[in-house]
Amino acid sequence: MMNDNADVLAQLAAVLRPQAEPDSSYVAKLYHKGLDAILKKVGEEATETVMAAKDGDKDKIVYEVADLWFHTLVLLATRTCARRMC
Amino acid sequence: MMNDNADVLAQLAAVLRPQAEPDSSYVAKLYHKGLDAILKKVGEEATETVMAAKDGDKDKIVYEVADLWFHTLVLLATRTCARRMC
Amino acid sequence: MMNDNADVLAQLAAVLRPQAEPDSSYVAKLYHKGLDAILKKVGEEATETVMAAKDGDKDKIVYEVADLWFHTLVLLATRTCARRMC
Amino acid sequence: MMNDNADVLAQLAAVLRPQAEPDSSYVAKLYHKGLDAILKKVGEEATETVMAAKDGDKDKIVYEVADLWFHTLVLLATRTCARRMC
Repeated sequence: MMNDNADVLAQLAAVLRPQAEPDSSYVAKLYHKGLDAILKKVGEEATETVMAAKDGDKDKIVYEVADLWFHTLVLLATRTCARRMC
Repeated sequence: MMNDNADVLAQLAAVLRPQAEPDSSYVAKLYHKGLDAILKKVGEEATETVMAAKDGDKDKIVYEVADLWFHTLVLLATRTCARRMC
Repeated sequence: MMNDNADVLAQLAAVLRPQAEPDSSYVAKLYHKGLDAILKKVGEEATETVMAAKDGDKDKIVYEVADLWFHTLVLLATRTCARRMC
Repeated sequence: MMNDNADVLAQLAAVLRPQAEPDSSYVAKLYHKGLDAILKKVGEEATETVMAAKDGDKDKIVYEVADLWFHTLVLLATRTCARRMC
């Protein structure tokens, strides 16, 4: 069963709605800072994913990939405004 | 409904199984080349995501994020071997 | 004595002049492909520098940093056109 | 004349000597934090270089490339210990 994956994506979509107040959450603050702040995080997390993989640390790889995906979801929510996210 | 998301993930998991022959697909070739080849792609796609976002090109952002996610899934499949992927 | 460093920089500046024919050299081809091709290389070489450092391979670190610097010099030559380069 | 370039490199080499106390400077703190902290900065500055280039902001390109070079020099000083740097 993969329904739990779908639930996670639905919950993420709710969190990522860009209407929130600037000081209400990490994501809201990131939206408020603007595109460059989001892109810096994408670059950072990609580098940290590479570093974790070179360390061979499985937990860290999963954590850093999750962090990378999260920030690309923020990018998608703010820039592409996909049907389920806005 | 988000079940289609779950289906996509299930199909991806099937594609990403690392048992395939080296010359049978793009992914199989990438596994065969080893970790460094996968990590180079992660770095490349992250850079291309940043570039697409700076261009403000929505279709390209979605395409590059998908490409980035795809290669991180390959990394996860080969290095963390999550339950559903191996 | 550091004059050899200065000589290397002077030689590099000569190589990086963007007037060359598109098919005359690697750099000329890169200029011809445009900014995105140069930036992809900057992203690639940064990732490869990180990977070499994680491997602890001194020769590879030096090689990848040199490659990264080279492509940032191409960027500077084409985008900022510093006094000594154009 | 390019001697001023050589002077800049000589001054940089002096600054980058890794013997300094952990709290004496930005570089000393970075050495103290270790390789991963340096590599994160390399990744960050590469991303910021790409962003500045996409913005077409000449001053920012020069600034970010300088920042990128600086952190790769820190990497070289700590990991390859080139003759003039240690």
